[in-house]
Amino acid sequence: MTTQEAKTIFRGHVAQMKALRHAMGILSYDGATTAPVESAEGRGRTLAYLSGCSYEIQTDPALEEAARYLSQHPEELSELERREIQLFRRGSEYTASIPRDEFVGYTTLLNKADAVWHKAKLDSDFASFAPLIREIFDANVRFAKYYKPDQAPYDTQLSRYEQGLTMARTDAFFGALKERIVPLLKRVMARPQVDDSFLWGKVYPTEVQRKFTDYLLELITVDRRRCGVGETEHPFTTFFNKKDVRVTTHYHEENPVYSMYSVIHEGGHALYELHSGDELEGTLLSGGASMSIHESQSRFMENYIGRSRAFIELIFPKMQELFPEQLAGVTAEQMYLAVNKAQPSLIRTEADELTYALHVLVRYEIEKGLFDGSIAVEELPGVWNAKYREYLGIDVPDDRRGVLQDSHWSNGNVGYFPSYALGSAYGAQLLAKMKQSVDVEGAIRSGDLRPITGWLEEHIWKYGKRYDPLELLEKALGEPFDPRYFTDYLEEKFTKIYGLD
Amino acid sequence: MTTQEAKTIFRGHVAQMKALRHAMGILSYDGATTAPVESAEGRGRTLAYLSGCSYEIQTDPALEEAARYLSQHPEELSELERREIQLFRRGSEYTASIPRDEFVGYTTLLNKADAVWHKAKLDSDFASFAPLIREIFDANVRFAKYYKPDQAPYDTQLSRYEQGLTMARTDAFFGALKERIVPLLKRVMARPQVDDSFLWGKVYPTEVQRKFTDYLLELITVDRRRCGVGETEHPFTTFFNKKDVRVTTHYHEENPVYSMYSVIHEGGHALYELHSGDELEGTLLSGGASMSIHESQSRFMENYIGRSRAFIELIFPKMQELFPEQLAGVTAEQMYLAVNKAQPSLIRTEADELTYALHVLVRYEIEKGLFDGSIAVEELPGVWNAKYREYLGIDVPDDRRGVLQDSHWSNGNVGYFPSYALGSAYGAQLLAKMKQSVDVEGAIRSGDLRPITGWLEEHIWKYGKRYDPLELLEKALGEPFDPRYFTDYLEEKFTKIYGLD
Repeated sequence: MTTQEAKTIFRGHVAQMKALRHAMGILSYDGATTAPVESAEGRGRTLAYLSGCSYEIQTDPALEEAARYLSQHPEELSELERREIQLFRRGSEYTASIPRDEFVGYTTLLNKADAVWHKAKLDSDFASFAPLIREIFDANVRFAKYYKPDQAPYDTQLSRYEQGLTMARTDAFFGALKERIVPLLKRVMARPQVDDSFLWGKVYPTEVQRKFTDYLLELITVDRRRCGVGETEHPFTTFFNKKDVRVTTHYHEENPVYSMYSVIHEGGHALYELHSGDELEGTLLSGGASMSIHESQSRFMENYIGRSRAFIELIFPKMQELFPEQLAGVTAEQMYLAVNKAQPSLIRTEADELTYALHVLVRYEIEKGLFDGSIAVEELPGVWNAKYREYLGIDVPDDRRGVLQDSHWSNGNVGYFPSYALGSAYGAQLLAKMKQSVDVEGAIRSGDLRPITGWLEEHIWKYGKRYDPLELLEKALGEPFDPRYFTDYLEEKFTKIYGLD
Repeated sequence: MTTQEAKTIFRGHVAQMKALRHAMGILSYDGATTAPVESAEGRGRTLAYLSGCSYEIQTDPALEEAARYLSQHPEELSELERREIQLFRRGSEYTASIPRDEFVGYTTLLNKADAVWHKAKLDSDFASFAPLIREIFDANVRFAKYYKPDQAPYDTQLSRYEQGLTMARTDAFFGALKERIVPLLKRVMARPQVDDSFLWGKVYPTEVQRKFTDYLLELITVDRRRCGVGETEHPFTTFFNKKDVRVTTHYHEENPVYSMYSVIHEGGHALYELHSGDELEGTLLSGGASMSIHESQSRFMENYIGRSRAFIELIFPKMQELFPEQLAGVTAEQMYLAVNKAQPSLIRTEADELTYALHVLVRYEIEKGLFDGSIAVEELPGVWNAKYREYLGIDVPDDRRGVLQDSHWSNGNVGYFPSYALGSAYGAQLLAKMKQSVDVEGAIRSGDLRPITGWLEEHIWKYGKRYDPLELLEKALGEPFDPRYFTDYLEEKFTKIYGLD
């Protein structure tokens, strides 16, 4: 085999995998947005076929051989090619370490788990879902051991979502958060609550909210020629290439703030994908570096920009123009306080900026315990509820609003949760760094956010997956990651909002 | 090879082809409905890859061998299997008769032609599109000769869209139409025109029209759990299986009638696909028998039901409820006349029930002339305009609204146009037959259309592709096809509307 032959095989297979992923992504997007309900069965068949094709291509011995050849001849590769081969081999070594039977069996297990979880959540029936959690966690422990026999399985698992992440690092991270956020939340709760009652009791028509979505996306510089907007039960972002990204939202007619922050959050994800370097298109290096870096960008837009006073003052005239009767007599300051109301709640996806990380902490501790055997599956509801009482000070009334609320475990996304909290913390430190060279507040007040998005493109977006997440982050920051930026930010912000001084 | 082995190979390949077609169909549907504009390039790449996969499967020698084996052992097959093998071989023999190079070259040609046509239409620049029309028609003539060397190429081409259709049959059909419709139209045009001015000059908000769509689809018994609704520039229907069909419409805020008839028309297509026999699912026999039978169903709903006086009287209260200010003071009778206004026009897709077939006739005569060499490509605009003057009595101001208006030729759909007119005529005869056992008007007046849809399901829909189109039709009719039912219908209807007696 020559280098050129190996490169041709590699590029050809990558192109095929990307085409299949694109087709599967569109099928799923369509399923979540506009497909009729009974279409699920047929879609399932087609997705199964395409994922089989993808598995064949990914595990084609010719591809393995080409990748091995190329990794043994690094001097004949560009820097980008070396990185691409490295990432490919990381993924394929994990897959290849799992016996084919177990791999296929796991896919079947997840298909089943998804259906069981949906029903279990609806019925608040943990017992029916418990055996599947056990099987899923058992499989993940086993797979982690196949791949890295000498490493703690949960470390292996964390590192699959965030290269280099370990329990030690995550423990330290959450330790730093818990230490500051739990007492801060107690002080906040001792003060009179922010009044957001003016937001309720009116109707904000979906049609008008759609116009608000268009306004917000344009404001944060999302190029609509490359970004579609759909409507789904749960908002998400999906991406096929840098000219084709989709965000979704959910309109609640009783309150426009839900969709507003979904749009800004998903818009942040979209911006990241849309500004991946041109030279990375069609390679394995295009798109976001990891889930936590992705969340650092979406939460950056949502919280550090979208929940700032300057941003609310900027957009409030537009809100009043769109909802003149609903927001009559309301001030921008009232709106600023309302969108920053902090209070312990049951549901992670509805949590505010201050309490969000505590929801994630609960899940992290539980996953760790399930991996090392210190928590048994049947104890989960009790453990969950005790942690919500401890960290958030509230009682969980049922498992539907407790341990059964998230889809992650039924989808096999074990070790994924910490990314959410890390992303928030990364974002706070990026904001501090950005402020050294950009007048962030000034840019927001001017309505031209390009100094902000330009900085993010220059330091994060354009690099795609060229660097491992922590390396990319520290390159952008010019110093090591430090969660104190995040806790300082929270303390300063909520001290002012709740008059804690 | 055993029969069982051959069947397994055949079924497996059919399932794969269906999965690929499903994925390609969803990509195209997404592209036409909600995809951002710049997504086209990436979608093109993925579609090209998937269509390559599909070609490989379709031309896999193992499949050919299995199909040949099965066709040689008809006694071991069920009736449905025999029919399926017959249809498969018909398609694969055509493809296989074309040298691979030419087949691939033709795909590339069509890709190019589509882009050139879009621009040519925009600029009303026939000269830039002419060389591509020539190449496309040349290729189709050549392919037809490869496949059936002893048959007139245009007969071969007609029969690809409508098995058994010939120029002789089509000439006779259009002759019968022309003879009655042209003089009828002249008499109509000599009378005072119907007044539909009340429909114009107001705004019919898209939001409200969407509710009207829901109402109409429910009324004609479309099961929305299996049928999605999208919005596109040009309305169409697409189908993936009998639990997943999509119709689209286009809302013109200045007039609700455009979308209303798009919805009823596409709803007719949807009903046909949704009621294909259960035993045909997953086989090559599911879905509509041919384009003309499909059009007979969509036009049945649109014209014979949707433009009837009973139907307008049924839905008019709902229209006034949805558009109370816009339709204040209007009567159902005024609406009935307005939706049946006949007048020569330039654009086929906007033509009324009376003139529609004449638009199709122009295209049929031109295709025939291009195939037999009696019309040269460069003469097309002149020929087109002369025929519009002769049959419709109007002057074509530019090629954009003339010979460049349709996408069919640039897409390679040569020989396809007659289906539209045949469909209308089939529908009229089906209506006459249906009336022998169903109180059609009574069913409409009652608001319960199931006696009508039940009859269509029983005589057309459930059979899928089990019979060739004409055979299916004549089975349903109990007599040969006769276009006089259509011309009689038109004469009776427009005589009354325009007071011709």
